[in-house]
Amino acid sequence: MYNPTRVHFGKGVVAGLGNTVSGYGRQVLLVYGKGSIKANGIYDQVMGQLQAVGSVVHEYSGIKSNPLVEDVDLAAELGREKGVDVIVAVGGGSVIDSAKVISITIPADHGAWEFMEGRRKPRAAVPLISVLTLAATGTEMNKFAVIQDTANHRKLGYGHDLIYPRHSFLDPAYTLSVNAGYTAYGIADLMAHAMELWFGEGDAPLSDRFILAIMQEALEAGPLLMKELGNYELRARIMYAATSALNGFTAYGKAKGDWGVHSFGHVLSVMYDVPHGASLSIVYPAWLKLMQERIPERVGALMKGLFGTDDSSEGIARLEAFLLELGCPVRLADHYAGDWDKEAVVAVMERNASNGAVHKLSAEDYRLLVDLYFS
Amino acid sequence: MYNPTRVHFGKGVVAGLGNTVSGYGRQVLLVYGKGSIKANGIYDQVMGQLQAVGSVVHEYSGIKSNPLVEDVDLAAELGREKGVDVIVAVGGGSVIDSAKVISITIPADHGAWEFMEGRRKPRAAVPLISVLTLAATGTEMNKFAVIQDTANHRKLGYGHDLIYPRHSFLDPAYTLSVNAGYTAYGIADLMAHAMELWFGEGDAPLSDRFILAIMQEALEAGPLLMKELGNYELRARIMYAATSALNGFTAYGKAKGDWGVHSFGHVLSVMYDVPHGASLSIVYPAWLKLMQERIPERVGALMKGLFGTDDSSEGIARLEAFLLELGCPVRLADHYAGDWDKEAVVAVMERNASNGAVHKLSAEDYRLLVDLYFS
Repeated sequence: MYNPTRVHFGKGVVAGLGNTVSGYGRQVLLVYGKGSIKANGIYDQVMGQLQAVGSVVHEYSGIKSNPLVEDVDLAAELGREKGVDVIVAVGGGSVIDSAKVISITIPADHGAWEFMEGRRKPRAAVPLISVLTLAATGTEMNKFAVIQDTANHRKLGYGHDLIYPRHSFLDPAYTLSVNAGYTAYGIADLMAHAMELWFGEGDAPLSDRFILAIMQEALEAGPLLMKELGNYELRARIMYAATSALNGFTAYGKAKGDWGVHSFGHVLSVMYDVPHGASLSIVYPAWLKLMQERIPERVGALMKGLFGTDDSSEGIARLEAFLLELGCPVRLADHYAGDWDKEAVVAVMERNASNGAVHKLSAEDYRLLVDLYFS
Repeated sequence: MYNPTRVHFGKGVVAGLGNTVSGYGRQVLLVYGKGSIKANGIYDQVMGQLQAVGSVVHEYSGIKSNPLVEDVDLAAELGREKGVDVIVAVGGGSVIDSAKVISITIPADHGAWEFMEGRRKPRAAVPLISVLTLAATGTEMNKFAVIQDTANHRKLGYGHDLIYPRHSFLDPAYTLSVNAGYTAYGIADLMAHAMELWFGEGDAPLSDRFILAIMQEALEAGPLLMKELGNYELRARIMYAATSALNGFTAYGKAKGDWGVHSFGHVLSVMYDVPHGASLSIVYPAWLKLMQERIPERVGALMKGLFGTDDSSEGIARLEAFLLELGCPVRLADHYAGDWDKEAVVAVMERNASNGAVHKLSAEDYRLLVDLYFS
């Protein structure tokens, strides 16, 4: 158990950003995405904070929602050239994940992908401060990052103690302008994170109770938020639930999570451009239906804990109904109207050796799973 | 949200103690209690670890179960004189709490009580590493310490970011020899910590769910452990529940806990030598009975969450039954057969201005509460 990130949570917390940043130095690398923070005023607030303390700001923008290693390397080059003292990442998971890998690439003498592939180990990191604008991945309070190498069709996760953000500023008001779709996908993402740990390895009853607590919170607050996207309190509840779902609270006593559904979801994202959270809301119900006969006690305990039912099938149906109520797809056809090729999906799963760390699926299982994406 | 302590949890984790300690330096201040760690072999294991890495060990032993500021000052003097690089605290809450305050007193030019009273602020701390031998207070993963100034009849709590242990080694096997009484009091203590936050200030639904999760874990594992004190898995569940009950998981989104019951319990400890956990198991049921008419929704939601009942009185009765099943007292007479003086108890409560931070009791309320200790 270790998590050194200082989280500043609540309305107006960004008022403390400038002083926090200036404690690390004057030269700042500001990392963000495609500019939505300029439209909603967050960029101006952050720049106001940095200018007030006399920061010299070097900007790297344009991080994609599936973050690319090319951007990481270019931003690291800029940071190295400018001798930055601190990185400020303003955005959602893709921006913060990129900034995490940038932070260890700046002091290195090689490209970022060397870390992702595990060929090199980081020795130092430029301090990273995040300002979160999307409740979903939990990256704001953990040591993980996911980066894509498009040219080689690879999308890898990475974890290291050096890439915990030093500080994360979480103002739920900064998520008020997130649209319905990405709000819903964020909720699906946090639910999926909770379940990946539920189906992990190791008997940890209290961590299991924390998992149920987080999922129950999302079951309650999620549909309320979808009816009232401008409600600050509900944004705050979902933001904290998303942070809690992957900051370690649910993992203590477990050797690892499963993460199979994530790997199967990545295949749908890569092939049909399904947003990450949406891919999870399609794959999880299918995976649960497949697994309920193989690990009936574990699936049953989850459904009992979430919905009070002893009938796993009923529980899974209620989970699907919840995801649909949010506006998430639960079948591939819900998201994508084009032609599908089931065997092509299976082939990409095979090529990527997509699988869980705990519950292994065979090639035959792939077909059973993919069939369930459609029916 | 901030908690930098690295927790090493599990059977045999102390095998990593030597290397961890030597990373901080050679001169070690070893702090422990009255010697039970010599009887159960823990002292030998810890010394073996320290000797293997060539530590020079300076010992300060004899910390009392109600830890005294005199010991803190004497140990700090020893640490200062020897120029220690790191403190290793081996014991329960009293030993670790003492070591926390020792860690900031060594670099200071004044006595420890100056910190406790808030007259001076610490500027530095000698790194502290704890080895826990009793599951109860949660001090192993938080920034709090309680120290007593007997001469002046004061017992104060203190909190500062500098006193988080850098590392805490939690081997549930190290608690296997804890007797039935202190095992039960530890469970009562963790339940009380959870409730002090439940009755705190601020609307934090997910923190409330975490509180229920921790209490449900103790409701399930506690009685099983009391029937089988040598069961490692059950010791592990209670150890982790105790850590979780006061490491911040339950506090996010709350401005403060109430801590009234703790302050009323301290009065019983001071007057009749009631162990801390036992004082809480007497006061909490009484306090809940008093408060169920004043804050019926809050008491009701707790009892509903714990026992599934809509009848608060029934819920409180079930909580009492649980505490009795553990072997904890729920009335003063359960613990102490001597003469009682209700008005004297009330007088000490008044003199200490004992009260909650959120739910304030009047002098008349004191009498109602104390009456409930007896009936």
